[in-house]
Amino acid sequence: MALIVQKYGGTSVGSPERINAVADRVARWRAEGHDMVVVLSAMTGETDRLIKLAKQMHAEPPARELDVLLATGEQTTIALLSMALENRGVPARSYTGHQVHILTDNVHGKARILDIDDARAREDLAKGRVVVVAGFQGVDEFGNITTLGRGGSDTTAVAMAAALKADECQIYTDVDGVYTTDPRIVPQARRLDRITVEEMLEMASLGAKVLQIRSVEFAGKYKVPLRVLSSFEDGPGTLITYEENEMEAPLISGIAFSRDEAKVVVRGVPDRPGIAAQILGEIGNANVNVDMIVQNVAADGNTDFTFTVHRGEYKKALEILKVVAKELKAREVIGDDKIVKISVVGVGMRSHAGIAAQMFRALANEGINIQMISTSEIKVSVVVEEKYLELGVRALHSAFGLDKAA
Amino acid sequence: MALIVQKYGGTSVGSPERINAVADRVARWRAEGHDMVVVLSAMTGETDRLIKLAKQMHAEPPARELDVLLATGEQTTIALLSMALENRGVPARSYTGHQVHILTDNVHGKARILDIDDARAREDLAKGRVVVVAGFQGVDEFGNITTLGRGGSDTTAVAMAAALKADECQIYTDVDGVYTTDPRIVPQARRLDRITVEEMLEMASLGAKVLQIRSVEFAGKYKVPLRVLSSFEDGPGTLITYEENEMEAPLISGIAFSRDEAKVVVRGVPDRPGIAAQILGEIGNANVNVDMIVQNVAADGNTDFTFTVHRGEYKKALEILKVVAKELKAREVIGDDKIVKISVVGVGMRSHAGIAAQMFRALANEGINIQMISTSEIKVSVVVEEKYLELGVRALHSAFGLDKAA
Repeated sequence: MALIVQKYGGTSVGSPERINAVADRVARWRAEGHDMVVVLSAMTGETDRLIKLAKQMHAEPPARELDVLLATGEQTTIALLSMALENRGVPARSYTGHQVHILTDNVHGKARILDIDDARAREDLAKGRVVVVAGFQGVDEFGNITTLGRGGSDTTAVAMAAALKADECQIYTDVDGVYTTDPRIVPQARRLDRITVEEMLEMASLGAKVLQIRSVEFAGKYKVPLRVLSSFEDGPGTLITYEENEMEAPLISGIAFSRDEAKVVVRGVPDRPGIAAQILGEIGNANVNVDMIVQNVAADGNTDFTFTVHRGEYKKALEILKVVAKELKAREVIGDDKIVKISVVGVGMRSHAGIAAQMFRALANEGINIQMISTSEIKVSVVVEEKYLELGVRALHSAFGLDKAA
Repeated sequence: MALIVQKYGGTSVGSPERINAVADRVARWRAEGHDMVVVLSAMTGETDRLIKLAKQMHAEPPARELDVLLATGEQTTIALLSMALENRGVPARSYTGHQVHILTDNVHGKARILDIDDARAREDLAKGRVVVVAGFQGVDEFGNITTLGRGGSDTTAVAMAAALKADECQIYTDVDGVYTTDPRIVPQARRLDRITVEEMLEMASLGAKVLQIRSVEFAGKYKVPLRVLSSFEDGPGTLITYEENEMEAPLISGIAFSRDEAKVVVRGVPDRPGIAAQILGEIGNANVNVDMIVQNVAADGNTDFTFTVHRGEYKKALEILKVVAKELKAREVIGDDKIVKISVVGVGMRSHAGIAAQMFRALANEGINIQMISTSEIKVSVVVEEKYLELGVRALHSAFGLDKAA
């Protein structure tokens, strides 16, 4: 008998049949004696349909009103699931973000959860009811409806689990867990039984898009036991852990990668204090997110300043930099949007030297040239030519022994 | 400069184009300097779509959850209209029933409004914003979402107008006002410039389905000036009034009718006290609504007891009565579901004798036999064979001088 929060994403509730399948699973857990809280996303495609409607009214729909509109998506699925549960003889109550008072700030479209009033949920659980909560949405201090941004339902689930001190927060998705890398690239990729929250953060931000980053951060902060599972097949999924028993940790947990990268280089920048700030300041002002940043040691008073941006913002970044470069009297601005990033991730590397060397060697053996390098405590990332992505990921997956069963 | 509440029904907001047309009209009123509150229904067809979804989850969807589901319909239209207004440079704010705290009882699916918190709306109006309110929905004292039942958006509009002491509550529909009778039957039928609330109640309940009865009662209670207009063409519509200047009132305002009637007769009932109560009690227990009731003077200790029910409940009523008749030792139970009701309505008849006689004569001239008669202060209704409906309505429309322009 435990208190379980389950979250189902858009594909898991994408049709009446699938909602019935979710009801079957929730009813089964309930029958085993668990207290159940279920957090739902909108049906897959619904958010896009609503945004399309909004665009017919206003080219840039006011954020407050867009949130009112989008919030109908989960309100629909929570009502339908509650009906399906009642149809199975399982008492259930649905709640919008407003009704369980998921208090957020008032940044419409990407609000942050500040507080949850768990009284209502506790009362229902005590009466044996399943509590069905709308993900993705909340309410600001003035009662305005807010949304947390895409993937925000994960955050709702984690926040509910934290508020209720749930025994486990289970995130049901269309994959059956977190893998050592993308199985579409490396068929031998394995599901990880467990992964630390830090590794998960590195994996997620690097492209293993299983969970919304913010929800993982949230889970880490409140030490919510988080498990990723498949909606469509039974299995243990992957448990995200907080203990860091590095003795037992595998050296490397996975190989992450990102195709959405572009590289920009400001060459021949005068090497004086404040230059980096000036360059990145302009980029930041334009809301362009910067990922890797590399600055080489200066030679004859000049240095090269390189960083990566999202590929969609490549042109914008180049234009800004051309202006900045002129002001700075930099020699030139060049770039490349045919690059990718590959990373090896693992808490185990903290206590083991030589991971980076091993990585570079594996890539060199395949004739892959490394353009940029960036390291953190539990990750080594490299930028390589786009055409080497698959080859590089496979080489590293094999080199770090991930092909074999653990 | 006035405070105007406008309500638009499902067909008026049935598509993005139509919502844009509503925005145009609201913006025009706003530009004339009026304070505007707009109440919306769900897009036409949306409620049926949602009910169909619900039925896939549960043959008899739990009422609480059905209300959560249905409330998404207006939440969608209010957000879209607010966007369309903002797109025209008109500041607007949308509010769900929850957000303006339309407090209702907790009879899900047909809740009654108890109170409205108008502070939020007043604040927005003071800031020059158009306030866009979801019709049809409210919230009970525990924060559960409720709905007022089909047509409840009219009631929301009237309630908002009453709470805000609006100068006028305008109900936009797909007809351009209240007519002397159905123009599909009598092409000469005229739009009435004004009609009293009592006449409107009689007209509405008798089949001139322009406004929800409850909203008219509500308007009468709070003396809210109510006007029915067309969404699709400009015009003055019909104003529903409360003053009863009978000197000026036309004798008869309109000819109403209902096709949905059926007649049941319990013959040879012992004429003793309590019989009517016993017969109607069983009918009421089965939730069958009774309309006209006629009991003839008794002859040799027996009487006939006749009443009309909705045609859809005819069989149910007959079955119940067969049991009751046996207990009462009544002679027989017969019925007829091929009948209709035709009524002449007008506050003017209060001060004029002979309306009923004039009505019966007009019908007799056409050879129409009258099966039942029922009168109230401002209405005379008759039940006739179904095949006489059109003939009877036309004869009365002409006999009471409604064909000519007023």
